[in-house]
Amino acid sequence: MNKVPSNIMALTSNTSNKRETVCIFGTGDFGRALGHKLIQSGYPVVFGSRSTQKSSLLPKDAEVLSHAEAAQKAAIIIIAIQRQYYNFLAPLAEILHGKVLVDISNNLKINQYPESNAEYLAQIVPGAKVVKAFNTVSAWALQSGTLDASRQVFVCGNDMEAKQMVMDIVRALGLTPLDQGSLLAAQEIENYPLQLFPMWKFPVLLSLGLTTFFFFYCLIRNVIYPYVTENKDFSFFIAISIPNQICPVLALILLALVYLPGVLAAIIQLYRGTKYHRFPDWLDKWMLCRKQLGLVALAFASLHILYTLIIPTRSFVRWRISSQTVSQALNNKTEALDITNAWLSDSYLALGILGYFLFVLLGITSLPSVSNNVNWREFRFVQSKLGYLTLVLCTAHTLVYGGKWFLSPSSYRWYLPDTYMLSLIVPCIVLVVKFVLVFPCLDRPLTQIRQGWERNPQHSE
Amino acid sequence: MNKVPSNIMALTSNTSNKRETVCIFGTGDFGRALGHKLIQSGYPVVFGSRSTQKSSLLPKDAEVLSHAEAAQKAAIIIIAIQRQYYNFLAPLAEILHGKVLVDISNNLKINQYPESNAEYLAQIVPGAKVVKAFNTVSAWALQSGTLDASRQVFVCGNDMEAKQMVMDIVRALGLTPLDQGSLLAAQEIENYPLQLFPMWKFPVLLSLGLTTFFFFYCLIRNVIYPYVTENKDFSFFIAISIPNQICPVLALILLALVYLPGVLAAIIQLYRGTKYHRFPDWLDKWMLCRKQLGLVALAFASLHILYTLIIPTRSFVRWRISSQTVSQALNNKTEALDITNAWLSDSYLALGILGYFLFVLLGITSLPSVSNNVNWREFRFVQSKLGYLTLVLCTAHTLVYGGKWFLSPSSYRWYLPDTYMLSLIVPCIVLVVKFVLVFPCLDRPLTQIRQGWERNPQHSE
Amino acid sequence: MNKVPSNIMALTSNTSNKRETVCIFGTGDFGRALGHKLIQSGYPVVFGSRSTQKSSLLPKDAEVLSHAEAAQKAAIIIIAIQRQYYNFLAPLAEILHGKVLVDISNNLKINQYPESNAEYLAQIVPGAKVVKAFNTVSAWALQSGTLDASRQVFVCGNDMEAKQMVMDIVRALGLTPLDQGSLLAAQEIENYPLQLFPMWKFPVLLSLGLTTFFFFYCLIRNVIYPYVTENKDFSFFIAISIPNQICPVLALILLALVYLPGVLAAIIQLYRGTKYHRFPDWLDKWMLCRKQLGLVALAFASLHILYTLIIPTRSFVRWRISSQTVSQALNNKTEALDITNAWLSDSYLALGILGYFLFVLLGITSLPSVSNNVNWREFRFVQSKLGYLTLVLCTAHTLVYGGKWFLSPSSYRWYLPDTYMLSLIVPCIVLVVKFVLVFPCLDRPLTQIRQGWERNPQHSE
Repeated sequence: MNKVPSNIMALTSNTSNKRETVCIFGTGDFGRALGHKLIQSGYPVVFGSRSTQKSSLLPKDAEVLSHAEAAQKAAIIIIAIQRQYYNFLAPLAEILHGKVLVDISNNLKINQYPESNAEYLAQIVPGAKVVKAFNTVSAWALQSGTLDASRQVFVCGNDMEAKQMVMDIVRALGLTPLDQGSLLAAQEIENYPLQLFPMWKFPVLLSLGLTTFFFFYCLIRNVIYPYVTENKDFSFFIAISIPNQICPVLALILLALVYLPGVLAAIIQLYRGTKYHRFPDWLDKWMLCRKQLGLVALAFASLHILYTLIIPTRSFVRWRISSQTVSQALNNKTEALDITNAWLSDSYLALGILGYFLFVLLGITSLPSVSNNVNWREFRFVQSKLGYLTLVLCTAHTLVYGGKWFLSPSSYRWYLPDTYMLSLIVPCIVLVVKFVLVFPCLDRPLTQIRQGWERNPQHSE
Repeated sequence: MNKVPSNIMALTSNTSNKRETVCIFGTGDFGRALGHKLIQSGYPVVFGSRSTQKSSLLPKDAEVLSHAEAAQKAAIIIIAIQRQYYNFLAPLAEILHGKVLVDISNNLKINQYPESNAEYLAQIVPGAKVVKAFNTVSAWALQSGTLDASRQVFVCGNDMEAKQMVMDIVRALGLTPLDQGSLLAAQEIENYPLQLFPMWKFPVLLSLGLTTFFFFYCLIRNVIYPYVTENKDFSFFIAISIPNQICPVLALILLALVYLPGVLAAIIQLYRGTKYHRFPDWLDKWMLCRKQLGLVALAFASLHILYTLIIPTRSFVRWRISSQTVSQALNNKTEALDITNAWLSDSYLALGILGYFLFVLLGITSLPSVSNNVNWREFRFVQSKLGYLTLVLCTAHTLVYGGKWFLSPSSYRWYLPDTYMLSLIVPCIVLVVKFVLVFPCLDRPLTQIRQGWERNPQHSE
Repeated sequence: MNKVPSNIMALTSNTSNKRETVCIFGTGDFGRALGHKLIQSGYPVVFGSRSTQKSSLLPKDAEVLSHAEAAQKAAIIIIAIQRQYYNFLAPLAEILHGKVLVDISNNLKINQYPESNAEYLAQIVPGAKVVKAFNTVSAWALQSGTLDASRQVFVCGNDMEAKQMVMDIVRALGLTPLDQGSLLAAQEIENYPLQLFPMWKFPVLLSLGLTTFFFFYCLIRNVIYPYVTENKDFSFFIAISIPNQICPVLALILLALVYLPGVLAAIIQLYRGTKYHRFPDWLDKWMLCRKQLGLVALAFASLHILYTLIIPTRSFVRWRISSQTVSQALNNKTEALDITNAWLSDSYLALGILGYFLFVLLGITSLPSVSNNVNWREFRFVQSKLGYLTLVLCTAHTLVYGGKWFLSPSSYRWYLPDTYMLSLIVPCIVLVVKFVLVFPCLDRPLTQIRQGWERNPQHSE
């Protein structure tokens, strides 16, 4: 501490010592990164290490002492050590008594141990106040200062004051502390950074399954059927034509699946006559991933738009149009405009465009920063009213697309109906049930139930 | 409280009692939801109720007492009762003296009562410190824990300390308190959750009006005129052709209306010689909804893009192109490439693409999370410089679209000019006036005025 | 202060005086705006001015005194005066001793003076505690209350307590304080509002340079070459055809440049055997603007999509297709479908669509509000795994686009290869090196090095 630091970044270590010393046990990668950051934010830092010989990797302004000496210098001790070495803290229990121990460890697998690392630490050093924090931050992000990823630091602990002290440090480092409650939450916090989009698992798996099914379904109808019956090679349909059948089908089905659980919940509430019974677990989980389902549906819809818009530039389509025109010219025949066709073609395109437009609006309002800026009524209006309008438009788009050939026997190949017919089943069910639920004889009791009224109030929980 | 809670969520009720008891008057839906959430966040909760018999719906760890007893146990009392029952608090005035009363009520209509509920509460219990809060949060959001919608809680009150205490609770529940000042702000806070996109009202109504006007205008020119004069049925133009005339026209007019008030303000400031006079009210309101006007314009522009890109897949367009080609072939005639036409067609498309591209950039920077990350100079640069460039490109796109037929008499039907000509009026006015204002003889005094200089400083306010 | 304010906005000046008086030196534009806002937030405000005659522009509830008198009334003094007049504070040094002086000044140029204004102020009044703040907020934004742009207020200072007091005021005004450390950071904070997208400079300049180069390259190949050799006028290619060659080329090159520094860093780390040596400066800077490079690449890719989708509506393209069809009809010739061509055309379009789709996903996750809501592992997954998949798809798209004519001599004009060939150089290098680095014999030591292992631990720093 004898030299004034000449870093580009402003250090406050040489200012009036208002901030309390922080001790870090362990001189590993994360311990060092955290030490650097703490010193930059004005905290005096003491490292506790087996070898007190100062490594050149440690911050210059930090002291390095033995574990026992370092612990005595600070009220807060950050345990930057892996769980399997926690045992060595047992002999220090007396010195650590009353201190705030910050467990920052992570595991390699979800639920690797029966108890969380933080609870394990609390068992080894029973007299200390254990707080779980910092495990969601990466050493690299701390070092580079570019916190592109999350600034959120989940904090939990049984002692309110200790938690407050740690949250102050988190804030001083430019991060956002989020109080998650008592140490019971540590397990969840330790699992958090190991998760890979947990809410997206079901929507993505579902859409992968449906994609596979519809891919083979389309393959049979559009490639194998013409090959077997007419010996024509349409294998290149795999690149664009088949994806452009799968994408709209999945977009429509997934969008309908966003609104199906709400409809089911309304039926269950009407049947039970109360809103205070819990829904079955599968329905609860389904309702919680509706946003993700909707966004996956939007992704498929966007792909459908791109695939459709690219159609006129496809070599196959150009060939087909030009050969039709040539054969017309050679047969000396000019076709008159078919007004019905023009109407059907234009209205199914218009319905699709409007449906997609509203769908994108829904997607934009689900961005965190946008949904934070609307009130509850506005959010409900967009997600419910506009959402159903989107579903109606997209279903109508598909119905009009079928047009004159809808349900006509010629559109069956090997008894298999066209994919768009399959896609209409779920949305039509949702819309019909929703339409029934809007009738006053059902809507009135449902509204009352949702405001807390009960048909049979002496229910047991 | 004798059993350790076995919930999935971490409860802190059994930890050291650092948090102060909170009392809730009323066991309705919102009172219960708030009680649950408070207990989960470590607050001991006491319910005040007429019947002290504990309902199974109330959180297990909460006590239920009479109003008077419950009030004595806590410094903060949340009034989860509807306004019409506030009178029953009058007899409790003595017990409530000096307590913090949190008014969380909402009304059914905007400005339903002459005074806000919170001020009414303060009149009934004059000795208490009334704080308005939590009215923007929904019971459902509190219960489910999925705060998809706003986390913002507006707080107001005359007593600083009471307000601080309530804001601490808000923060502890994982919500974001926003101090709105004294209890005078309660009216506005109570109206807030009843509002449905207030800033969007004018832009949406304006665009609906313009859409209706241009729809009938186009209907007359494109459907009724050919039907009357040539007996041709172009009714299917309603689906795509007419919307694709309305959308670009509205996009351009609304975009110009975003920049018109700035130009008017500059003229008014130059004329008055000071920036300290208030603008007329209509101009103030117009300036405050410029962002919304711009986003509605962007929505119309996006629809125009979709409608335009879908053109080649339309059945009518395919028929027209193919019959033109067939008739060329039958007449044994090959046309040479018209370079002027190719230039006009390509440059109007290119101008449109660039204009739309910049427009989307403007839209992205108006996302709250993006605009929070730029400094003032950058925000001005994007919204002003890029915005005018967008307007110039879009106006040029429309001018070149007119091309050779611009103002030619053959494009009038029943003396009605083409819609794109009407759309050019406002943007051309804005661009011409802006161009004049850029001249140094006007720009220099304007800059001085905006920096606080006054031509005639002895003005009275 | 004798009249209750009847403003629309809730004032708290007449409530219990919990907030401490704030003094403002200077009655200029920003001083007045800040004064208004402070009074609205419940702070008593005293202006220090040369003329104590109260101007009608100052807030009605504020006092106006001489500098010395005003300073004595408050612990915090906001210096709303330009740097060149700081000298007049020297005689007041005694009164200002121990006070918190808030420097809010800005300069006109980056690094205008050798030391920051705040440090200069600290030299003139050595006994005061100088804090830098508010310089990033505009007077207009404070006045209008519509803080569309940044709410972030950078704060720095050597005295922790003084800084804390200023940060509390910032928070009370509804702004977000960000502690930047000691007064050494003032220079950077003063430069911040003068910056215009500093991180975007390199990506934008680079893409401008490349755009210019490829524009002239394409001009020679596509306009000058046919004019010289065949005397054909294709000058209208400048509007769409040439931009649609430049955009994909730049998108691909810039996307590859996003991943090149990571690959270079891996090679350097493997060679050095440690991660603790600093990278060369140019590599550090390059790595910090990867996000911006990627977003510029996404912008070019989006333009490419728009230019491509508009192709069928171009007058030139319609003429070419129709004249080809007419000549086919006149020659009485019907072409059979070329399956290889159909495959090549469809698969290059499909690869492009999928690549662009993933690219847009990457762009969405780089929005601040989205990246704040993912954990570190999820962010890495999206930016690294999905990013490389995007690069692979886009490179494959370009390779298949070349198709049968790839590297064929007929595609050279004046020995110049087609632009898409040039664009493949960088991405192919990146992908090959990345492929090599994935082999276990290189991946294993690299992973160890990144976890902190060193081949040669006795390195000197």
